[in-house]
Amino acid sequence: MTAPAAGARPVLERLWAVVPAGGAGTRLWPLSRAAHPKFLLDLTGSGRTLLQGTVDRLQPLVGPRVVVVTGAVHERAVRRQLPAVDRVLAEPSPRDSMAAIGWAAAVLEREDPDALLGSFAADHVIWEDEAFRRCVEEAAQVADTGLLVTIGIEPTEPATGFGYVRGGAALDGFATAREVEEFVEKPDRERATEYVASGRYRWNAGMFLCRAGVLLDLLAEEHPGLAASLRSIAAEPESLERRWPGLTRIAIDHAVAEPAAAAGRVAMVPGPFAWEDLGDFAALGAMRPRGNPGVHVLGDAALVQAPGSTGLVVPAGGRTVAVVGLEDVVVVDTGDAVLVTTYAHAQQVKDVVDTLKREGRTDLT
Amino acid sequence: MTAPAAGARPVLERLWAVVPAGGAGTRLWPLSRAAHPKFLLDLTGSGRTLLQGTVDRLQPLVGPRVVVVTGAVHERAVRRQLPAVDRVLAEPSPRDSMAAIGWAAAVLEREDPDALLGSFAADHVIWEDEAFRRCVEEAAQVADTGLLVTIGIEPTEPATGFGYVRGGAALDGFATAREVEEFVEKPDRERATEYVASGRYRWNAGMFLCRAGVLLDLLAEEHPGLAASLRSIAAEPESLERRWPGLTRIAIDHAVAEPAAAAGRVAMVPGPFAWEDLGDFAALGAMRPRGNPGVHVLGDAALVQAPGSTGLVVPAGGRTVAVVGLEDVVVVDTGDAVLVTTYAHAQQVKDVVDTLKREGRTDLT
Repeated sequence: MTAPAAGARPVLERLWAVVPAGGAGTRLWPLSRAAHPKFLLDLTGSGRTLLQGTVDRLQPLVGPRVVVVTGAVHERAVRRQLPAVDRVLAEPSPRDSMAAIGWAAAVLEREDPDALLGSFAADHVIWEDEAFRRCVEEAAQVADTGLLVTIGIEPTEPATGFGYVRGGAALDGFATAREVEEFVEKPDRERATEYVASGRYRWNAGMFLCRAGVLLDLLAEEHPGLAASLRSIAAEPESLERRWPGLTRIAIDHAVAEPAAAAGRVAMVPGPFAWEDLGDFAALGAMRPRGNPGVHVLGDAALVQAPGSTGLVVPAGGRTVAVVGLEDVVVVDTGDAVLVTTYAHAQQVKDVVDTLKREGRTDLT
Repeated sequence: MTAPAAGARPVLERLWAVVPAGGAGTRLWPLSRAAHPKFLLDLTGSGRTLLQGTVDRLQPLVGPRVVVVTGAVHERAVRRQLPAVDRVLAEPSPRDSMAAIGWAAAVLEREDPDALLGSFAADHVIWEDEAFRRCVEEAAQVADTGLLVTIGIEPTEPATGFGYVRGGAALDGFATAREVEEFVEKPDRERATEYVASGRYRWNAGMFLCRAGVLLDLLAEEHPGLAASLRSIAAEPESLERRWPGLTRIAIDHAVAEPAAAAGRVAMVPGPFAWEDLGDFAALGAMRPRGNPGVHVLGDAALVQAPGSTGLVVPAGGRTVAVVGLEDVVVVDTGDAVLVTTYAHAQQVKDVVDTLKREGRTDLT
């Protein structure tokens, strides 16, 4: 393990934001498609896409030190949305999160052996930006000591859609950081309720901070071939197309975080801010301002009439949408497809997309 | 009252079908609009519009003797849908059913003092055409004796959306015709249940047969000014624009049928065929073939996916429509508007249209 670089430049001057921008967001069809996935969409009605919001949130900390890793097919759209970001790493094909983040780590490690990276998914939403940045700043300080650091989100409910991280003893010398005892997979409802009640578990939102070299060294212990390939790609960028297809497909949680936690080399900084991965339309609907009766409209409210209804309406097709007498309904209108479902069935939207794919409807998926 | 014309040409050679084609079908928005109302739509998936279906059904009985009465704004569309129909009377403005049918009666009376007319709304659906025509034939024979004859539909449920007609004694010399004791307005559920249980009540579907002259004479007893104006318009067609705006707005039921029934001058021929006025999307959904699981699709079923759903989907906008996990849902997609409701709320679609009208959205209504 690399030792903390005593006397090096301040941590925040060596911190890079790495933003893996992948994932289709199938359960948000027909808004999200293979060609314009979730992270390229403005799902909060803020006027900024999730990708732009992610970078906006980090910029005050990292300035120009941003790397976006995305599929080659999305490179143009990403550059168009982020004209100020130079570094866009275009993956020839999807190889899961370890390859994406590890590639960025290898590139940064070559440029600056003291580089730190923080990895933040491009399709999450955080409302309290200041609290988030204070948290990232502490996590970066902890990561500079040679630990892998995760940000653990305070659970607001016993969610079964996320993994959890179990915190241990407080770390000496830091305001809020703790040891991590274990990462646990998505639990069932009963177990999730126990986790939340215990007060020791946090949601694993997949936000990791680490020294670039440490991350690759941790990876090399479990998956030496993958670590070596990523470092080779960074050293010989012209070898990307040749080496990339052979990379192991594995998530960063399994490749690095879980084994490192077992070895006592992971810390957690609690994240006391509201976070949402907006995984489906029920999550999107839950963003509505409290106390607002009727339906939540994402888009132009003048297009929507919804007497006697509650739920979410997305009039993205520019048409008038009328919803009469339905509760917790989801109506999404787009140029070529209309979805109608309920919050309770929001997860099953994926089945529709699967069926369309089986039918070869690449025009719609 | 005109006496039956003994020795005249056979009744069926003097029978004209009068088809009042009016009414927007507001509760079928966004399929029906002011500019393309219900009767111009194919709501049965038969490939023929309701207006075309009405004329198709009558043609074997009346041949070319068809008069359609419609608003001037719809004259072109009506003629386009019915190229074989010469007689289209274009009303300068809506003046309710008595004016529409009475105008046709006045025109026919001038041409043939022995003319009979049968009036059949352009936006109703009947499934058993043969049974319907046998019924109309008997009704025409009865009407030729100088009575006003209505066709009373056998109720299939205690509907509260229609008026009822109470039958009396059998008429001598006819197979099924009976006297009519009374017309009653739309009842509440309790009363409707009593009506149906009694076996004496039939739905008043607004189908009337009468000698043209008798109809106008009956009208003259209650509304002499209206009868005189209609006869004047028939005599001087060039006076239409001048006289029409002053006509009394009244439905034929109130103007003629109810007073005539009270005077014992109305007969009923029972209609033993399935009839539907398709007043709202619940009625449209109820047309679905029995035993067919899932949703009923009116239009191109290849555009619809509806896992775990029941109800009605109308993909009239050409877009893919996905409905996930909703029961008795109604989804209607058109080029500029999408409606989502349920069978239980189908009547409230009218409220949406009213709101759009208040907002001046003539483009959508």
